[in-house]
Amino acid sequence: MFIKVLGAAAGGGYPQWNCNHPNSRLARLKTSNAVPRTQSSIAVSSDKKKWFIFNASPDLRQQLWDNPELMPSPDDPLRYSPIMGVILTNADVDHTAGLINLRESQKFNLYATNRVLDVIGKNSIFNVLNPKFVKKLPIKLANILELNDTEDNFSGISIKPFSVPGKVALWLEDESKGKNFGSVEEDTIALEVTGANNKKFFYIPACASIPEWLLTKLDNSELVFFDGTLWQDDEMIKQNVGIKTGKRMGHISMSGEEGSIEILNKINIKRKVFIHINTTNPALLEDSNERKIAKENGWEIAYDTMEIKL
Amino acid sequence: MFIKVLGAAAGGGYPQWNCNHPNSRLARLKTSNAVPRTQSSIAVSSDKKKWFIFNASPDLRQQLWDNPELMPSPDDPLRYSPIMGVILTNADVDHTAGLINLRESQKFNLYATNRVLDVIGKNSIFNVLNPKFVKKLPIKLANILELNDTEDNFSGISIKPFSVPGKVALWLEDESKGKNFGSVEEDTIALEVTGANNKKFFYIPACASIPEWLLTKLDNSELVFFDGTLWQDDEMIKQNVGIKTGKRMGHISMSGEEGSIEILNKINIKRKVFIHINTTNPALLEDSNERKIAKENGWEIAYDTMEIKL
Repeated sequence: MFIKVLGAAAGGGYPQWNCNHPNSRLARLKTSNAVPRTQSSIAVSSDKKKWFIFNASPDLRQQLWDNPELMPSPDDPLRYSPIMGVILTNADVDHTAGLINLRESQKFNLYATNRVLDVIGKNSIFNVLNPKFVKKLPIKLANILELNDTEDNFSGISIKPFSVPGKVALWLEDESKGKNFGSVEEDTIALEVTGANNKKFFYIPACASIPEWLLTKLDNSELVFFDGTLWQDDEMIKQNVGIKTGKRMGHISMSGEEGSIEILNKINIKRKVFIHINTTNPALLEDSNERKIAKENGWEIAYDTMEIKL
Repeated sequence: MFIKVLGAAAGGGYPQWNCNHPNSRLARLKTSNAVPRTQSSIAVSSDKKKWFIFNASPDLRQQLWDNPELMPSPDDPLRYSPIMGVILTNADVDHTAGLINLRESQKFNLYATNRVLDVIGKNSIFNVLNPKFVKKLPIKLANILELNDTEDNFSGISIKPFSVPGKVALWLEDESKGKNFGSVEEDTIALEVTGANNKKFFYIPACASIPEWLLTKLDNSELVFFDGTLWQDDEMIKQNVGIKTGKRMGHISMSGEEGSIEILNKINIKRKVFIHINTTNPALLEDSNERKIAKENGWEIAYDTMEIKL
């Protein structure tokens, strides 16, 4: 199974368009310790010919350009795409808006929970996905789903979705519905992904906390992509670039006693990769102390075009 | 007045994600005669400090990266953008989806006809534009509108919108409404843009035909950006990459007796630039015969980062 990181940054990318925080500034100055990243997405394939995209980032068109295996090859038909399907783990703009790039008359399968499919259906801008060509297939929690190519042949890759602690997408928050803004189980899912060779990995780009059952689930796994949005829960407030904590946004922080580094140190994971990293997170900088701490604890910081073979 | 072409290609960009037409193939092979282009947009400024974006393409994040003057400078505040406003000329996905990139808590003015603002309002995904920060300002046909910066000071740039022959956006077509799919005047507008120095140009990225009144209007103008979607009305059908003519899509073709080159030859325009160019248009290729013909008739083919001072 082949995994490519299409985008390693959180919503808005690194740097964010209106952010002048030192991290973003360094990326614009093109210093070697601050590598820009597009928005959160990975691609998965059994054969490097047929690909499934996990989350469709607004940067998708640029990501295809940066990953030529996701575009037609010279010998392909006049209209063709190696993208067989798109799987959404929530309705966040940084995970769904990219669908708009997959416009018009091209077959592919769109997988998401009914909750997320419903939101897509209600936004007429997604009518650019012609229903004659794009099959919308609901993901059911805890059920194993075999990913088929556009000819309905099994790709070798299957996913088992499960709900993780999280929050409804920002643009769908309903303040009248109390502290959790009307969030339900199907709003934030994670995936256990199994390849034809029976190798498995976990994809968890958004997660608000790590309960005991999740620790048990991840123990002894080979590879985990995990929510790396913030280093500190209040880093955006402290640095005057935002008014929200990680907890408010549905993201656990990397550092601290309740942070993902400390908690996931309790179990055994062979390879740990942070993904969905916010423009303010100091672990983005190659030479930061925070990067060093993450590394010492066995973590890698995902970057665009990173490739992992499992 | 400074004008920058952010994106010169039509919807889907050049090359389009699922297109394997020889034009698209050449772009992917990175041959020097086939320069990739992002989706249709220009930026206009009086001082190169405060900018207005005309049409928000899905490639906007990449376009800001390619045009650093549109991103914060090191001395700007922690949250800042030189983008003071966005003007939409229709609701096409390639002209509106980019708004999603201008997310959260950043002041700017959004100008469009009520018809287009209404469509944006009905798609909840655009809630990422926080109404506390983004002012929606209706454009009225034939009225001169002064573009203000986010502090409500006049930028020196004003626009005079007028309706041109066209069609409602593809994703909003209503087949029950007959041959024009329910299109109304406010669906496709063009802009006469005047700078502080009283210089003017026309921006017409979509136009289905050139009636006599439009010829009169454009006569003796200094600069016109004009719809360059297709070379031939039926080129997508002939080349087996689509089923629609230019006329069906609301775009006049460049060539032929009824094409824009021939018709606009009847009047005097100092500088003529084709923009919104489809991935199938042979004029995209630097060494094509069609490029030569366009050039001989006084036309330039817009490219990303092209800069014009007026």
